[in-house]
Amino acid sequence: MKPYAEMTKEELAEEIKKLKDLYRYYQRMDLNLDMSRGKPSAEQLDLSMGMMDVLNSDSDLACEDGTDCRNYGVLTGVHEAKVLIGDMMENNPDNIIIYGNSSLNVMYDTVSRAMTHGIMGNTPWCKLDKVKFLCPVPGYDRHFAITQYFGIEMIPVPTYPGGPDMDMVEKLVSEDESIKGIWCVPKYGNPTGYSYSDETVRRFAGLKPAAPDFRIFWDNAYGVHHLYDDRQDHLIEILMACKRAGNPDLVYKFSSTSKITFPGSGIAALATSPNNLEDIVEQLKNQTIGHDKVNQLRHVRYFGDIHGLMVQMKKHADILRPKFEMVEWILDEELGGLGIGEWTKPIGGYFIYFKSLDGCAKAIVKRCKKCGVKMTPAGATWPYGKDPYDRDIRIAPSYPPVEDLRAASQLFALCVKLVSAEKIYSEMSE
Amino acid sequence: MKPYAEMTKEELAEEIKKLKDLYRYYQRMDLNLDMSRGKPSAEQLDLSMGMMDVLNSDSDLACEDGTDCRNYGVLTGVHEAKVLIGDMMENNPDNIIIYGNSSLNVMYDTVSRAMTHGIMGNTPWCKLDKVKFLCPVPGYDRHFAITQYFGIEMIPVPTYPGGPDMDMVEKLVSEDESIKGIWCVPKYGNPTGYSYSDETVRRFAGLKPAAPDFRIFWDNAYGVHHLYDDRQDHLIEILMACKRAGNPDLVYKFSSTSKITFPGSGIAALATSPNNLEDIVEQLKNQTIGHDKVNQLRHVRYFGDIHGLMVQMKKHADILRPKFEMVEWILDEELGGLGIGEWTKPIGGYFIYFKSLDGCAKAIVKRCKKCGVKMTPAGATWPYGKDPYDRDIRIAPSYPPVEDLRAASQLFALCVKLVSAEKIYSEMSE
Repeated sequence: MKPYAEMTKEELAEEIKKLKDLYRYYQRMDLNLDMSRGKPSAEQLDLSMGMMDVLNSDSDLACEDGTDCRNYGVLTGVHEAKVLIGDMMENNPDNIIIYGNSSLNVMYDTVSRAMTHGIMGNTPWCKLDKVKFLCPVPGYDRHFAITQYFGIEMIPVPTYPGGPDMDMVEKLVSEDESIKGIWCVPKYGNPTGYSYSDETVRRFAGLKPAAPDFRIFWDNAYGVHHLYDDRQDHLIEILMACKRAGNPDLVYKFSSTSKITFPGSGIAALATSPNNLEDIVEQLKNQTIGHDKVNQLRHVRYFGDIHGLMVQMKKHADILRPKFEMVEWILDEELGGLGIGEWTKPIGGYFIYFKSLDGCAKAIVKRCKKCGVKMTPAGATWPYGKDPYDRDIRIAPSYPPVEDLRAASQLFALCVKLVSAEKIYSEMSE
Repeated sequence: MKPYAEMTKEELAEEIKKLKDLYRYYQRMDLNLDMSRGKPSAEQLDLSMGMMDVLNSDSDLACEDGTDCRNYGVLTGVHEAKVLIGDMMENNPDNIIIYGNSSLNVMYDTVSRAMTHGIMGNTPWCKLDKVKFLCPVPGYDRHFAITQYFGIEMIPVPTYPGGPDMDMVEKLVSEDESIKGIWCVPKYGNPTGYSYSDETVRRFAGLKPAAPDFRIFWDNAYGVHHLYDDRQDHLIEILMACKRAGNPDLVYKFSSTSKITFPGSGIAALATSPNNLEDIVEQLKNQTIGHDKVNQLRHVRYFGDIHGLMVQMKKHADILRPKFEMVEWILDEELGGLGIGEWTKPIGGYFIYFKSLDGCAKAIVKRCKKCGVKMTPAGATWPYGKDPYDRDIRIAPSYPPVEDLRAASQLFALCVKLVSAEKIYSEMSE
């Protein structure tokens, strides 16, 4: 089929009629499918059921240094958990704090602490007239929700396959002292699937911020979440890069086992410089006596070491890969050559990024919803939920079974076609 | 033996000589004992080892409404956990949020949220010139650490066996709009062991604060932590009392299973009014996707219901009771009638409160430390760590084995005698 834009008005009218018939056909199917959130599927969760067996009533719940993990204490996490997560994050265990079950919570707390107490002796952000964050777009809605909640002004920065527009990042960060942070998902980004290039990471490490308390919020959520054995992205490690660039304190790096074991029952971690760690612990000691060490132990004993964890990730990949490929195959089949959208074919992470024609995303998502397929709300990948181009759609193929995905993707493609054809047709009429 | 104050100078000199000999004898024993923190003993932790068996790789990890607890979601906690903790806290499950592993963390977050966003539409505390908290003394050092960390001015309020000085609380709270909260440990208080009387609870519920965003921070840490079957304190339930008094939004009530199962691996909870809950959830949804539901399920399945939990508490009591009685017996034996201190004999909780002669607490704790017995630092039970009378000492008998406790208590009593005798002697000399 030829691109919609090259069709005659009559051809397009005919196409729209066919698409509407097909849409009505789908409506009668009573679909109830969800491609909205980056949740692991039940099959993936089953992979970790063995973790429920590693600790039992006969277990010694002491960690390697002899501390009884059943009792209070050990503010920054047990050492062997730091080693495991350090190996996962490619950081020295000494640079790591192990937290509770949610890296989002750690990020929230990090912003909250900066608001009330400032970073390393700088003015608390709540005492400043204006605080701004750079937000590479499309990005992660929950990041933007945190900064919005704290009244931080968000400035969108375009994202390309190798990372954010670094010319813009460098310029803004070096000129504007009120810019205090930037949200980054550097690897298999949410929702783009893009990974930062070596050049991007080096330019991040070499930033010369006007604000001494500017920090990079480096959410390495998908650090080991590859889809393929033979094609994997590898990033320059940001803490080390910052250290080499003479900016050791520039970055907070976050990660968790949420999409490795059980979301909500995993362990989260932060890696950063000794100066930042000291600053954080000064607060943390007022906030808690310690996080869940038994769960830290459970993870360590389950995986044994980083190899065990990587074996688990391969099993996740085996479940996820066919889902991504199913969606991509259907998008290729249904939309290839029509000139009404572009989409990524990520080799890791949890999302496919679909870019529709300008002004179509909301209508596409709405059409899907009316037909029983739930997508992430259009606009969610932008600060304040407002995509000025109305074109970015996040597809989350992880949760539904493959067969459901087939139907959901076909319906999605149909909605893209229908909305795009109608838009092009209406522009022809004008 | 007669009271030290009634001894002649010669008798006291003789006594001091004997005490010093005995102290040297203890010094040669190389003691290394800890009565400083309210930690359960290993024997108590063993009581919960069965909890490690209730979930295994064959378990269905769905909660009663069918939600898969292994995945993301359920922001405020699974329903059956709310029922169990609701029964424990004597609150409706609908009034409860289940959090992570630490009620201290919940209290910290509650203060932090009030600082950055205010309570129910009121001005964020960080925008006010002055924020004050009332701090019944002696109290819990970690409460005071939170308010100190946020720069909140702390005003000590004397505590008596039936609760804080309510005349003072009512007066201050109704007159001073900058007073935004009060820290309470209403049952088996830390460190006094006192429980609030019915009158005290009713007067709390009936407070008429000048500040609309004044809240009672009701840390019911020891709600079910009785030491005896036949002697137990029962408090009027504060949420209900506030509701009846026409002050439904006046209180945040905190609790956890930290001293029921494993400290650091338990579940914490907050109970409060629907208005407060709504206010909190508005923040919480930005902070996390949800807390550890698998651990919530683990607790529910382990205990079955509140009866199971109460059976567990009886076992804790059987371990703790002899320890409290050992310390009390030694204090009676060694210090009875000497007129150099008073101490509580609590029927619940984790602490014995020792009140020395004015100006002696620091010296006593220092003497203990030099002889290998670690006590909570003198002053810790006061805001800013400053006890103006230098007389409040918190004794934590839970952690050491009974035999260690005997030695530690004897040494403590000896140090009380020595420091007090020297003080009285020096005053005689003046």
